[in-house]
Amino acid sequence: MPNQIISLTTDFGLRDPYVAEMKAVILGISPNSRIVDVSHEIDKFDVTMGGYILAAASPYFPKGTIHVVVVDPGVGTPRKALLIQTERGYYIGPDNGVLVLAAKSQRRRHIYRIENPEFMLSEISNTFHGRDIFAPVAAHLANGVPAEEFGQETIEMVEPRFAETTRTSNGLIGEVIHIDGFGNIITNLKDEELKFMNIGRKVHIELGDIDLKLQLYEAYADADSQQLHAIIGSHNFLEISINQGNAGKRLQVEIGDKVTLFSEDLERD
Amino acid sequence: MPNQIISLTTDFGLRDPYVAEMKAVILGISPNSRIVDVSHEIDKFDVTMGGYILAAASPYFPKGTIHVVVVDPGVGTPRKALLIQTERGYYIGPDNGVLVLAAKSQRRRHIYRIENPEFMLSEISNTFHGRDIFAPVAAHLANGVPAEEFGQETIEMVEPRFAETTRTSNGLIGEVIHIDGFGNIITNLKDEELKFMNIGRKVHIELGDIDLKLQLYEAYADADSQQLHAIIGSHNFLEISINQGNAGKRLQVEIGDKVTLFSEDLERD
Amino acid sequence: MPNQIISLTTDFGLRDPYVAEMKAVILGISPNSRIVDVSHEIDKFDVTMGGYILAAASPYFPKGTIHVVVVDPGVGTPRKALLIQTERGYYIGPDNGVLVLAAKSQRRRHIYRIENPEFMLSEISNTFHGRDIFAPVAAHLANGVPAEEFGQETIEMVEPRFAETTRTSNGLIGEVIHIDGFGNIITNLKDEELKFMNIGRKVHIELGDIDLKLQLYEAYADADSQQLHAIIGSHNFLEISINQGNAGKRLQVEIGDKVTLFSEDLERD
Repeated sequence: MPNQIISLTTDFGLRDPYVAEMKAVILGISPNSRIVDVSHEIDKFDVTMGGYILAAASPYFPKGTIHVVVVDPGVGTPRKALLIQTERGYYIGPDNGVLVLAAKSQRRRHIYRIENPEFMLSEISNTFHGRDIFAPVAAHLANGVPAEEFGQETIEMVEPRFAETTRTSNGLIGEVIHIDGFGNIITNLKDEELKFMNIGRKVHIELGDIDLKLQLYEAYADADSQQLHAIIGSHNFLEISINQGNAGKRLQVEIGDKVTLFSEDLERD
Repeated sequence: MPNQIISLTTDFGLRDPYVAEMKAVILGISPNSRIVDVSHEIDKFDVTMGGYILAAASPYFPKGTIHVVVVDPGVGTPRKALLIQTERGYYIGPDNGVLVLAAKSQRRRHIYRIENPEFMLSEISNTFHGRDIFAPVAAHLANGVPAEEFGQETIEMVEPRFAETTRTSNGLIGEVIHIDGFGNIITNLKDEELKFMNIGRKVHIELGDIDLKLQLYEAYADADSQQLHAIIGSHNFLEISINQGNAGKRLQVEIGDKVTLFSEDLERD
Repeated sequence: MPNQIISLTTDFGLRDPYVAEMKAVILGISPNSRIVDVSHEIDKFDVTMGGYILAAASPYFPKGTIHVVVVDPGVGTPRKALLIQTERGYYIGPDNGVLVLAAKSQRRRHIYRIENPEFMLSEISNTFHGRDIFAPVAAHLANGVPAEEFGQETIEMVEPRFAETTRTSNGLIGEVIHIDGFGNIITNLKDEELKFMNIGRKVHIELGDIDLKLQLYEAYADADSQQLHAIIGSHNFLEISINQGNAGKRLQVEIGDKVTLFSEDLERD
């Protein structure tokens, strides 16, 4: 398996040596693997954000990619460690829900508990399983060790409270799942639910306490400079954005804030 | 073409999944290409800064390197996408001027519009051409697809207002083009224009409203600690610096501020 | 020597083109080398922090890895440039002490001054030896050039004032050597000195002016949320931490602050 790709998503930041230690361990075991950083700027301990970022990026990776996620507030406690194998690839990380959003949209094949010390570092700290367990497991998997050798198959895993959408008589209700570096407010309202919305018309959105009537555009730059507008973003979620401005800051929105898209927008005109 | 190098310069930041999505698309098409990050911390939508950073870095890359730049405020609008082929390498990005500073110092061979959908992702968003167009084009180019297959050759492209220097009876006039992470204030006054300046003498510079008489040193550490001084930096531009301090913050300078180097400094003593 | 690993540690940040220029130079000379970023967020000119981060990460890299460190306030002055060869690998950087903490725990084989211009760029700036000297030296070394060809062997090098620990009748005295991105306060008190400390008991620590009686836990999450506690971290140093909080900010600690671990904690109960 030459040039096996291993992706890394963590909340470690890039200032400390932690990400490099994971890469060093991987390359010591699997010198030809290709390591791709997804993000190391997940908000500390934010399992939901880590899960969202991985779920956004992972569909673009080639089949068979090994994704390692270390957002791990329970490191050193009896929380389990998981290896999920799907038709698209492998997902390695703590059993706290962080892997589920990326893996659940695919036919799941198998979930394994990571238990076999043969594929871990010989000394395991209680504070850094990214380096001591998850990195060597990913590297051995890249070297061709079959998934079932890492531990017992299981059907149990922690399911995060997914940001789910609800359709009521008022409209479609969801929440803010991410605010990106451009200030785009990304909701969990997805395009299959929005298919009757017409580009160019106004949409009526309640975002937390704020009532908004926004033009729905195709491209950020179709809006006037600094104009607040709605858009279907590059991952097919409804976003609220400002052309060349920061919507998240202007509206002072936070992750988890409730979003309602009123029903008049969900019917064909 | 094994181990073809692809460089990436964007304003995406490293917190979001966007850079990883570009890399995933590239490695899916061209598994042996080498991806090198130039910077993902270009100020949002700042075409001038993106162009400057690429122009600074690109001469150090091997011949044939493919440079991808995504600073793209006009994404989704009818702005063109370009592939410029020169004797040194390839420059891929939006037709907004961001490629020109890096490419113009070289003999330009050919400018192509990127139009052939065969070399793009099958679904193209209106918000993320970095992933959907520029990354796959770079990867196919790395695989050996000839440049002319990507689209029509053209001679038209958006030329940015370059930061140009003017010689007047007063002296040489230019502007601040970058302030780096050390606080070095980098001007567009270049060493061929400064060749009569002697190391160790005083130079007379007006920077915005501030009148400065500064020692010209060879190395930052030749100045006393915290001493404001002038230097010819590692890209051969005149810089105003503080040894172990931050000149940009102390002088509250901004990109685009006018710089005058008075003429007494431009004559041989 | 295929796939030779070269690690990079600098204070350049990731916004500017400097890191990419080093990588470009390396790949131009040694196209198959693997470059791993350790950190580019070393505090500007902080030789101690650079030395600590490299020393933390380097033991996890495979034997023969080439480590390049550029934290170089004296660039352009007559400070020497060094290549240290040990049984574990190679350490390249300015002779200001930044390499010593990583290299000293190993049997040192040879220290060479980097002097041979054959292995540097043809034009050497006074401000950026990372690109002009250290990167090409690392790349030629990766290509198999023997260490002794880079310059004269020497036994002199700048030894930094190491943060040393002292045992007094009061207890063990050391200092804060790093505060990581999670806010963990990392001291230089190491686990061999702490071997009689029992998990679960209280330890008595003075940190600057602050007198602390802290529970010693095995894992961050064994503490209650927001509870200040002590822990032996993943590099075997005594840390003061807050579960899911930032101990460095709460206690307003700085690098270099004195730490005393009182002697009752150092004896077997």
